[in-house]
Amino acid sequence: MRNVVVVGASQTKFGELWDRSLRDLIVEAGSGAIKDSGVAKGAIQSLYIGNMSAGRFVGQEHLGALATDFLGLGRIPATRCEAACASGSVAFRSAYFEIASGNCDVALVIGAEKMTDINGSGALTTLAAAGDQEWEASIGLTFAGLYALIARKHMNDFGTTREQLGMVSVINHRNGKDNKLAQFQFEISLEDVLNSQIIADPLRLYDCSPITDGAAAVVLASENVAKKLANQPVYVLGTGQGSDSIALHDRRSFTELLATKAAAKTAFEQSGVPRSKIDTTEVHDCFSINEIVSLEDLGFVEKGKGGRFVENENIAIGGDLPTNTCGGLKVCGHPVGATGVRQLVELTRQIRNECFNKVKTDVGLNLNIGGSGATAVVNILGKEPKV
Amino acid sequence: MRNVVVVGASQTKFGELWDRSLRDLIVEAGSGAIKDSGVAKGAIQSLYIGNMSAGRFVGQEHLGALATDFLGLGRIPATRCEAACASGSVAFRSAYFEIASGNCDVALVIGAEKMTDINGSGALTTLAAAGDQEWEASIGLTFAGLYALIARKHMNDFGTTREQLGMVSVINHRNGKDNKLAQFQFEISLEDVLNSQIIADPLRLYDCSPITDGAAAVVLASENVAKKLANQPVYVLGTGQGSDSIALHDRRSFTELLATKAAAKTAFEQSGVPRSKIDTTEVHDCFSINEIVSLEDLGFVEKGKGGRFVENENIAIGGDLPTNTCGGLKVCGHPVGATGVRQLVELTRQIRNECFNKVKTDVGLNLNIGGSGATAVVNILGKEPKV
Repeated sequence: MRNVVVVGASQTKFGELWDRSLRDLIVEAGSGAIKDSGVAKGAIQSLYIGNMSAGRFVGQEHLGALATDFLGLGRIPATRCEAACASGSVAFRSAYFEIASGNCDVALVIGAEKMTDINGSGALTTLAAAGDQEWEASIGLTFAGLYALIARKHMNDFGTTREQLGMVSVINHRNGKDNKLAQFQFEISLEDVLNSQIIADPLRLYDCSPITDGAAAVVLASENVAKKLANQPVYVLGTGQGSDSIALHDRRSFTELLATKAAAKTAFEQSGVPRSKIDTTEVHDCFSINEIVSLEDLGFVEKGKGGRFVENENIAIGGDLPTNTCGGLKVCGHPVGATGVRQLVELTRQIRNECFNKVKTDVGLNLNIGGSGATAVVNILGKEPKV
Repeated sequence: MRNVVVVGASQTKFGELWDRSLRDLIVEAGSGAIKDSGVAKGAIQSLYIGNMSAGRFVGQEHLGALATDFLGLGRIPATRCEAACASGSVAFRSAYFEIASGNCDVALVIGAEKMTDINGSGALTTLAAAGDQEWEASIGLTFAGLYALIARKHMNDFGTTREQLGMVSVINHRNGKDNKLAQFQFEISLEDVLNSQIIADPLRLYDCSPITDGAAAVVLASENVAKKLANQPVYVLGTGQGSDSIALHDRRSFTELLATKAAAKTAFEQSGVPRSKIDTTEVHDCFSINEIVSLEDLGFVEKGKGGRFVENENIAIGGDLPTNTCGGLKVCGHPVGATGVRQLVELTRQIRNECFNKVKTDVGLNLNIGGSGATAVVNILGKEPKV
C-alpha cells in the first residue's frame, strides 16, 4: 500500500445556519480544502462525501454528483459513503484506499450534513434510523435514550458519577470557547450541567451534542504529490474500522463498544505507534458518557476508570491526553456526516501547529462512532511517515 | 494495483416481495454469494453495501452495520455506498480498491433496495431525490419526465422512432421470459408497448422499469485467494466512473451522457480490451431510451444510430452484441441500489457459463447509471486476467 497524506483541510462554521443550504456548505468546505492544499482544481481525480441522511433531512440523495457539479470538478468519480454518524470517516477511508491502491493520486473528501431544515422531532426520528429501525426506532428509542442506558449501566457497574459525566462537557466547553467555527462559544460550570434539563435520565441537556448544520473537507494525496506542495504533510499512519450489532440489546456488554476496540486494534497495529505516543485525540462525545467509554475502549485508561480520568483533568489541555481540544461534538456541534472529517481537520491543524488552541502534536488520533457503537472508525495521523 | 477477482455471486428473487424485509433480502443475497464463493464466513474481511434510500423507503440508515450484524460477520468494517441507481456499482468499486490496495483479501459487496413498503407516490418522490432537489424534484419533475425529455430530443435530432424505443422492451422481455428471478416472466409485442398507458410522453408503461424489492451480492478476492477456490475466477479487468451535472438542464446535450463516456474511457483504457472483444453487455435500461443512449455513449454504435441498432436486433441473443441477456432492468425489475450488483452477477454467470440464457462470454461489460446520468459506472469482467 502506498502512503497517503492529508494535504489540505477546511471546515465551514458549524451551527444553525438558516441562510445556508446543504450545497452551499459542501461547496464552501470543498473549495476551502482545495485552496488550502494548493492543488489545482483540475488535479482532483476522485471525490467521496460522507453524509448520513440528506434524503430525509433535505430530500436530496446522490450527493457525490451534486458535489462534483457545484464544485466544478468535471467528470471525476464521486461517491457518497454512509455509516450513520461515522459517515465522514468511512468516506475518508474509501478515498484512502483508492489512493493507496494507486488508482488515483489526489482525492477530495467532504463530510456534510444540513439538519435544521427539518423540524425538531423530524431530526430525532431521522437520527433514530442509525439504530435498529425494527427493534429500537420503531418503539421510540432515541439516541439520547440509548446512551442513557449505557450511562446508567456504567454508573452502576463502575461507580461513575453524575459529576464525572458533567466534567466531560465542562472541559469541552472550556476547550472550545474560542473556537470561532463552533456552534457554541461559552464556558459552562458543573452546576450548569447538573441543573440543565433532563433529556433521558441520567443524561441532561448539557450532556448532549446539538443538532447542527456544517461541512468539513480534506484533500488526500499520494506521497509524491504531497512532496510538491507547500503545506506540512500530515501522514495517515493507520486506519481501522469495526462493527457491532446495530441494536444495543444484542450486545454482551453495554459499557464497552467492541467496534471501537476492533477499529483501534487495526489502526494501532497498522501505524506501529504505541498509545503512549499519541499527543492529542478527537473522540466522539455525541453524549458525555461516550467520551468516557471511548477513552476506555481506545485503551488510554482501564475499563471503568474513565470517569475518574476525566475528573482528574487528564483530558484537559495541559493534561496527559488533551482530548477534543477544539470543543468536540458538544461544542463544535454535530452535523452527523461532517463530524468525522471535522475531527481530521482539527488533527491536521494541530499537527501543522495552526490550531487556535495549540497542543504540540506529532501524532494524533480520531475516533468517530456511528449509531450506538455499531460502527467505529479510528485514524492515526502523524507529522512523519511510518517508519 | 493487485488483480481483483469475483469469486462468488448471488441474487434474491426480484419483485414485489411483500413477505420479505430489507434485512431478509440483504441476508439472503449475502449468504448466497458467500456460499457460492466457497470461502468461510470468517474469511470475509470487509463489507460494502450499495443502497440508494433505505432511510426514506424503510426508515433505516446504517446498512453496513445492519448487514454485518444479521449476516453474523463479526467485527469487520462495513460501509454503505450511494450514488442513486448506481449505488451497487460504487459499492463494488470501493471494495475493489480496498482489495487492490492490499488492505484486505476478501470483501463482500451487497446491493439492496426494498421499495414497495412505501406507497406509490412516496416511491416516486424518493426516487426524485436522485435528481436535483432544488431545481427538478421540487417542481415535480420525475425520472420518467426526465427520460421523456431525453427521448423526445433523441427522436427530434436523430429520427429515432417510437417503434425503436418499443423494441428495447420487446427484446428485453424476450430475453428475460425464462428468468425465474425476474419480476416479470412474459413476452410482450411491439403493439403491447405502443398501446400501453402513457407515463410521460413519449414514454409509455412498457418503456419503464418497475418499482422492485431485491438484493444481489458478489464476493471479491485477491488473485491468491481466488486461485484456491473451486469457481471459475472472473477477473475485474477495468472499472471506470464518471459524473455529470445533477440537473439535466445544465448539460450541453440531452442526448449524450458524458458521465457514461468518461466511465467507459477509463474502463476500456484500464482493461486494454477493445470494444470488439466485448461478448455481452448489461446496460441500464431504466427507461427504454436509456438503453439506446447507453449503447451509443459506450461506443458500440454511432451517436444517433442506436435506435436502428436495436431495431435490427443487434442486441438480441444471437446478434452482434447480446445485451441484457437476462431481461435488464425492465424485466428483472429495478431495486435501485441492487441493480449494479445484479448486473455483475449476470456477467459472472455468463462468464462461468452458468446463465439460464447462455451466451458464450469471455469478456463482458456492465453500465450502471445514477439519476439522469449524473453518475455512470462501467466495469469490464473477463475469464482471463489482464495481459
